[in-house]
Amino acid sequence: MASSSSLVQPSVRLPSKTPSVRRFALVGRTNQSPLRLNPIRISVSASHRTRLDVQASSAPPMMEEATSGSRSSTVVDVDLGNRSYPIYIGSGLLDEHDLLQRHVSGKQVLVVTNTTVAPLYLDKVIKALTDGKPNVTVESVILPDGEKYKDMDTLMKVFDKAIKTRLDRKCTFVALGGGVIGDMCGFAAAAFLRGVNFIQIPTTLMAQVDSSVGGKTGVNHPLGKNLIGAFYQPQCVLIDTDTLNTLPDRELASGIAEVVKYGLIRDAEFFEWQEKNMQALLSRDPSALAYAIKRSCENKAEVVSLDEKESGLRATLNLGHTFGHAIETGFGYGQWLHGEAVAAGTVMAVDMSYRLGWIDDTIVKRVLNILQKAKLPTTPPDMMTVEKFESLMAVDKKVADGLLRLILLKGPLGNCVFTGDYDRKALKETLHAFCKF
Amino acid sequence: MASSSSLVQPSVRLPSKTPSVRRFALVGRTNQSPLRLNPIRISVSASHRTRLDVQASSAPPMMEEATSGSRSSTVVDVDLGNRSYPIYIGSGLLDEHDLLQRHVSGKQVLVVTNTTVAPLYLDKVIKALTDGKPNVTVESVILPDGEKYKDMDTLMKVFDKAIKTRLDRKCTFVALGGGVIGDMCGFAAAAFLRGVNFIQIPTTLMAQVDSSVGGKTGVNHPLGKNLIGAFYQPQCVLIDTDTLNTLPDRELASGIAEVVKYGLIRDAEFFEWQEKNMQALLSRDPSALAYAIKRSCENKAEVVSLDEKESGLRATLNLGHTFGHAIETGFGYGQWLHGEAVAAGTVMAVDMSYRLGWIDDTIVKRVLNILQKAKLPTTPPDMMTVEKFESLMAVDKKVADGLLRLILLKGPLGNCVFTGDYDRKALKETLHAFCKF
Ligand SMILES: NC(=O)c1ccc[n+]([C@@H]2O[C@H](COP(=O)([O-])OP(=O)(O)OC[C@H]3O[C@@H](n4cnc5c(N)ncnc54)[C@H](O)[C@@H]3O)[C@@H](O)[C@H]2O)c1
Ligand SMILES: NC(=O)c1ccc[n+]([C@@H]2O[C@H](COP(=O)([O-])OP(=O)(O)OC[C@H]3O[C@@H](n4cnc5c(N)ncnc54)[C@H](O)[C@@H]3O)[C@@H](O)[C@H]2O)c1
Ligand SMILES: [Zn+2]
Ligand SMILES: [Zn+2]
Repeated sequence: MASSSSLVQPSVRLPSKTPSVRRFALVGRTNQSPLRLNPIRISVSASHRTRLDVQASSAPPMMEEATSGSRSSTVVDVDLGNRSYPIYIGSGLLDEHDLLQRHVSGKQVLVVTNTTVAPLYLDKVIKALTDGKPNVTVESVILPDGEKYKDMDTLMKVFDKAIKTRLDRKCTFVALGGGVIGDMCGFAAAAFLRGVNFIQIPTTLMAQVDSSVGGKTGVNHPLGKNLIGAFYQPQCVLIDTDTLNTLPDRELASGIAEVVKYGLIRDAEFFEWQEKNMQALLSRDPSALAYAIKRSCENKAEVVSLDEKESGLRATLNLGHTFGHAIETGFGYGQWLHGEAVAAGTVMAVDMSYRLGWIDDTIVKRVLNILQKAKLPTTPPDMMTVEKFESLMAVDKKVADGLLRLILLKGPLGNCVFTGDYDRKALKETLHAFCKF
Repeated sequence: MASSSSLVQPSVRLPSKTPSVRRFALVGRTNQSPLRLNPIRISVSASHRTRLDVQASSAPPMMEEATSGSRSSTVVDVDLGNRSYPIYIGSGLLDEHDLLQRHVSGKQVLVVTNTTVAPLYLDKVIKALTDGKPNVTVESVILPDGEKYKDMDTLMKVFDKAIKTRLDRKCTFVALGGGVIGDMCGFAAAAFLRGVNFIQIPTTLMAQVDSSVGGKTGVNHPLGKNLIGAFYQPQCVLIDTDTLNTLPDRELASGIAEVVKYGLIRDAEFFEWQEKNMQALLSRDPSALAYAIKRSCENKAEVVSLDEKESGLRATLNLGHTFGHAIETGFGYGQWLHGEAVAAGTVMAVDMSYRLGWIDDTIVKRVLNILQKAKLPTTPPDMMTVEKFESLMAVDKKVADGLLRLILLKGPLGNCVFTGDYDRKALKETLHAFCKF
């Protein structure tokens, strides 16, 4: 816990590939990064404590805006050798034009966004990209909004635009939107001319705490989610927390499901912080949001640096997702939000962990409790039968040679395993406990 | 020249990333490879010399089948760190079942081939994959034949099959066919579940000397060739030279255009060998073919190890291709074979090099001569106008920030440059010299 109770961001860098590293020391190199601007000072300020209801002395400090300079931001670095990149987190970052511009190398930019986000933020982003840069031309492609358009046909519209406007290898693709836009734009950038520069500007909480970080990109196939894609890392991720002000409540809660996940799989202290600060998050307290985003990105960045291609550790980020994906596919894409399905899936994974005797029942209760507080579903929709779960889970990407491996909690809060070595009976029992048929 | 005049394959390994390395010493590590079988002994045998018309004492030795063991093969290694892989070259290698099997890691295989190649070799390949392996299941997807099907719609058929047969992350995709199948299957393997194992079994000379090596994969867009794809390396490339026995003459000649290319850009000695042995190649002399394939793969492997992502050096493999791609697109995909377009494009690039004063006229004549011997076209089709060339060349992948860079010969035979720094007048003159309008 040393790193989180000190007054400045930790700058210790652990060697990459140390599989047992747990905390976020690895990624906090704000002090060294040549790219940082106005790095946030982290301190326990009385006013924040009160406002955010942070009572326990073991709770990590809240963020406070740096008093110098105009805006504040914090930088989390994703450590991937020569493909490393910074995540900028802060309020008003879209007005820091220099931030984006330093990551655009060529003269041509293609912004990929959708019909909902374009009217809200496209002009702002175009301005940020072109301000003082007469040589930079920005094109945009505005896709229809929704998970059901996350497919190859819609992706082709991005290629059409890129080719018709004669973008070359030095161009930069910018994803402006939630996880759907980020995943599609990332895959388009990976495949266009076999790979061009790419920047993420995530505008949902889901995308800010999860999908924009780590390089997983792709589209859905009618028979399953994210089955076609690439590992492709962006040049940077720019998170302007102000964009969350326009986000619907349900979407905000969806992102919180992934925040809860980080606590459960590897960061008990963060989970405890969330238990105390859920109300602040739901009421969009900027400091609480910024802290939750930063800590989530740190957790994800560390996991990704240790296991970019998901040979093991990275799979733990899929807690609740095997059940959740089955719900999304079975119920029909877009019926439930991703985080909603993950929330119900998480409760199922936790239930199964308990049936296996791997965790005690207080954890089960705390998980149920925090997700209910966030107004997230804790059971699958009625139409999900045991059979439906079983057949849909069989096409999960984590099946290897016919064996379904799952992420399950084991031990004290903050510990999990990714394993195919569990009693099938427990899985059956969980499915029967949660399904009507 | 030290490496090619010795009697055994060179085993010197130069450090990666030495940009000025020229010969193929880097890749010839047959003696060290744990994967080799019956490595070929290379020796200058009198009988071969006579038969193949190798007269000059400076000419490299011909291959000779190893007398021990049942079959002979040679191995060229592509050195890409932890993504290195072997290229097996030899006659009858599809009957060496162990060769393929050692590179299949999971229990599921998907063979991607087409309607022409399937009746010829699919059974043989399925047998090679399953012989003595009751646990391995092989599915196949047979695509329509032709460059015009190298598109996203056809690619989706591969994903459909893979998903319907529930292939998982440990499965292996096998490309059985020419460059079209190799490029598509490779991209499908790169994108399916964000990347699965992949093996190349190239069955055209074009694919054996060029497209199966180096990891460039992809599909065409209606507005341009290979605009969507990935860099993705196979587990191995298996070249059974016997498959060339069923290849039409025109296809054989098309592959020879790429063989000539290696000589021109970096291997003068190989070019001289070709001048003397073109007749043997055209009459499909197995030793001549095996030697030309091996030497081509060595050249390509070395370039690729030094510059996998084409930041510079690798672009030189595109000699004649900027003009050639314009011909392919302008004339319509499939009118001319790739190598035919490249042959005409090479003559144009050489002509332009001469106009710039970068090479002397004997090189121009020798290039014309060798391509005519191979019965390849040396001028673009009549319908290609100066205007058509200019507008199509503007969308070439080698355009960066609006500047068209070209591969041009410069200096003695075997030397080239990749540059945007040339007199535009020479390009104009070449276009006018080769186009009727
Ligand atoms: N790549 C990864 O590692 C990863 C991880 C998690 C999730 N995902 C993917 O992310 C997707 C879900 O992402 P999501 O939850 O962001 O969904 P989303 O992209 O569909 O966005 C949700 C909705 O919010 C709208 N929106 C976005 N920003 C807004 C804003 N600032 N104000 C108002 N409305 C806004 C969108 O237009 C959309 O209607 C799924 O496809 C999932 O597979 C990927
Ligand atoms: N990836 C790369 O680095 C790279 C390099 C060069 C070319 N290419 C691509 O390769 C493609 C051209 O490859 P190609 O010339 O092999 O064309 P191709 O794949 O279309 O094959 C040519 C023809 O020969 C047939 N054929 C294949 N093997 C045969 C056999 N053994 N016997 C009889 N018929 C056989 C095919 O069915 C086809 O009709 C182009 O799409 C080009 O863009 C890629
Ligand atoms: Zn998720
Ligand atoms: Zn070629």
